[in-house]
Amino acid sequence: MEKLWSAVTQRLEPYVPGEQPQDRQYIKLNTNENPYPPSPRALEAIRAAAGEGLRLYPDPEARGLRRAIAQRHGLGIEEVFAGNGSDEVLALAFQAFFDASRTLLFPDITYSFYSVFCGLFGIPYREVPLDEGLCIRVEDYLQPSGGVIFPNPNAPTAQALAAQDILRILEADPDRVVVVDEAYVMFGAESMVPYIRDYPNLLVITTLSKSHALAGLRGGYALGQAHLIEGLTRVKDSFNSYPLDRLALAGAQAAIEDEAYTKEQTLKVMATRERFAAAIGAMGFTVLPSRANFVFAAPPQGVSGQEMFAALRERGILVRRFSKARIDNYLRITIGTEEEMEKVLRAVAEILAQRA
Amino acid sequence: MEKLWSAVTQRLEPYVPGEQPQDRQYIKLNTNENPYPPSPRALEAIRAAAGEGLRLYPDPEARGLRRAIAQRHGLGIEEVFAGNGSDEVLALAFQAFFDASRTLLFPDITYSFYSVFCGLFGIPYREVPLDEGLCIRVEDYLQPSGGVIFPNPNAPTAQALAAQDILRILEADPDRVVVVDEAYVMFGAESMVPYIRDYPNLLVITTLSKSHALAGLRGGYALGQAHLIEGLTRVKDSFNSYPLDRLALAGAQAAIEDEAYTKEQTLKVMATRERFAAAIGAMGFTVLPSRANFVFAAPPQGVSGQEMFAALRERGILVRRFSKARIDNYLRITIGTEEEMEKVLRAVAEILAQRA
Repeated sequence: MEKLWSAVTQRLEPYVPGEQPQDRQYIKLNTNENPYPPSPRALEAIRAAAGEGLRLYPDPEARGLRRAIAQRHGLGIEEVFAGNGSDEVLALAFQAFFDASRTLLFPDITYSFYSVFCGLFGIPYREVPLDEGLCIRVEDYLQPSGGVIFPNPNAPTAQALAAQDILRILEADPDRVVVVDEAYVMFGAESMVPYIRDYPNLLVITTLSKSHALAGLRGGYALGQAHLIEGLTRVKDSFNSYPLDRLALAGAQAAIEDEAYTKEQTLKVMATRERFAAAIGAMGFTVLPSRANFVFAAPPQGVSGQEMFAALRERGILVRRFSKARIDNYLRITIGTEEEMEKVLRAVAEILAQRA
Repeated sequence: MEKLWSAVTQRLEPYVPGEQPQDRQYIKLNTNENPYPPSPRALEAIRAAAGEGLRLYPDPEARGLRRAIAQRHGLGIEEVFAGNGSDEVLALAFQAFFDASRTLLFPDITYSFYSVFCGLFGIPYREVPLDEGLCIRVEDYLQPSGGVIFPNPNAPTAQALAAQDILRILEADPDRVVVVDEAYVMFGAESMVPYIRDYPNLLVITTLSKSHALAGLRGGYALGQAHLIEGLTRVKDSFNSYPLDRLALAGAQAAIEDEAYTKEQTLKVMATRERFAAAIGAMGFTVLPSRANFVFAAPPQGVSGQEMFAALRERGILVRRFSKARIDNYLRITIGTEEEMEKVLRAVAEILAQRA
């Protein structure tokens, strides 16, 4: 019955998110969730919004939330766009700024949703290989193109570019939009937000899922000059007037306002990351320098990434692996609590000892 | 700076939702919200979900909610698709089942988002005129086409087709998908859900915004045979893996399970509608027979729809008006509480008396 599907639907290769397993309790380090709870103020705001007011539509312009975001970043509300998770914001950005007429550039090893969006919206793209150290090579993005998108830090490699390097990409072609996906930026990378006022072609997208521990709430946003936000808004208003429900609006706003709490939790995650990365490095893993809430690491010779993945899973530890050339020996391991990472280290030591 | 927008974004004519005014307290009868609160069980479920669990992604397959919907309608979970409000579900259906190769049919006077979706996704369409009584004329949809979509009851006219008439449209061309948008069906129209098992080309879409008093939660769903649900799922998984947050999933599931509460509230709204429609009819309004939670009515000679709209607004009563040929003299008036509708009737009587 696929004959009733549209032409594009027949061709689609959908994104596959990390497992949300129901079979048993895992130490869940496979989808880069935050191990600490969301801000208590966010939970309080949600409970307060769970009342009779839900019979009414939310504010289609999400003004309360956008004002809080604007204030956090020192921008105006007209420089802020809010959506139903950063995946939705990314999808709307692909529609707003990229089209069939010109080729979009992004890394060959990166967030795998980008190529899926291109398939859905009919956007031609070229995957630019990372260098031998699995880093983005700025020179490859200086040629004119229909647009550029990459995460900074990149996923799943966890490695970040410096702002000065990204500025070169922005300046190389002012007639294209450069989207910097800062989903993980609060864990130690340099944000491009301070450059928004100077670069009309810069769009920064981020999410509350990681740093704000609100993956279950679905909140993401974009920052850029007003003309870019207007483009996004036109697409959003042609797709769904009210992408954020009243509960998410209330929770997201309170979480943004509780900046001190977020900073404290992200610093804890970063400290655990440094200890964990050093420890598995000492066990012989190749560990890429991480500016995110996960590490990307390959086990020492004698154990493949796939074997390590399976052995960890048997021990109730879920990480993520990508069966893709050049990275199929790596594991993407989310940073959990100190205690969880200690368990991972003990499990890894056991697994390595058994294979020795 | 529109030069940085994509080609489609330059051409878009976004949907304009009804006002959500902030300037004063209105009797708000302009966006077809339910005047009664959501199910207390739904509110309880949301509060219970507002905890530490929000740090984790929601179930991308929304299984708990989809099982509850399936059970309510006597279908299997594979015949249910859930999304972020029925606008999103509609948008995904346009992508999944309609494309540039064939022309979509819908009424000339109908939910104005349909033509917006066509603009966004590049789908050619033909607007089929309603008949002189502002009804859908079934004969006009019997010719083969790229698809058919209409609300039943239609919006903003409030008038419904019988299931037997819709079956003729389904049978006329089994190679196209017919989407019946049942946003308002619980207020007295005949649902097409019992025909899903017999009609592989039937997709029914509905929302929790109206009958379940959850406009602020954003929950909608589609029902159809598994191959249609699979098509929708492919598009959804190419756009946003997690369109429903944990709070909306919990609240929507509880609301669906509290069927008795929903039935009681919808019966109250329907009873108020009948009294209100009779009363403004007696004042000389032309009132179309309504199977929805609103009436579509034109004031008697001597007062234009626009004048009545403005005079009601001055008195703190907000209704909706469309500046479109053939219906520009009509007002779409949401059915509120008994008390609210009494106030509307008194205001209308005053306004008519002043103009007499």
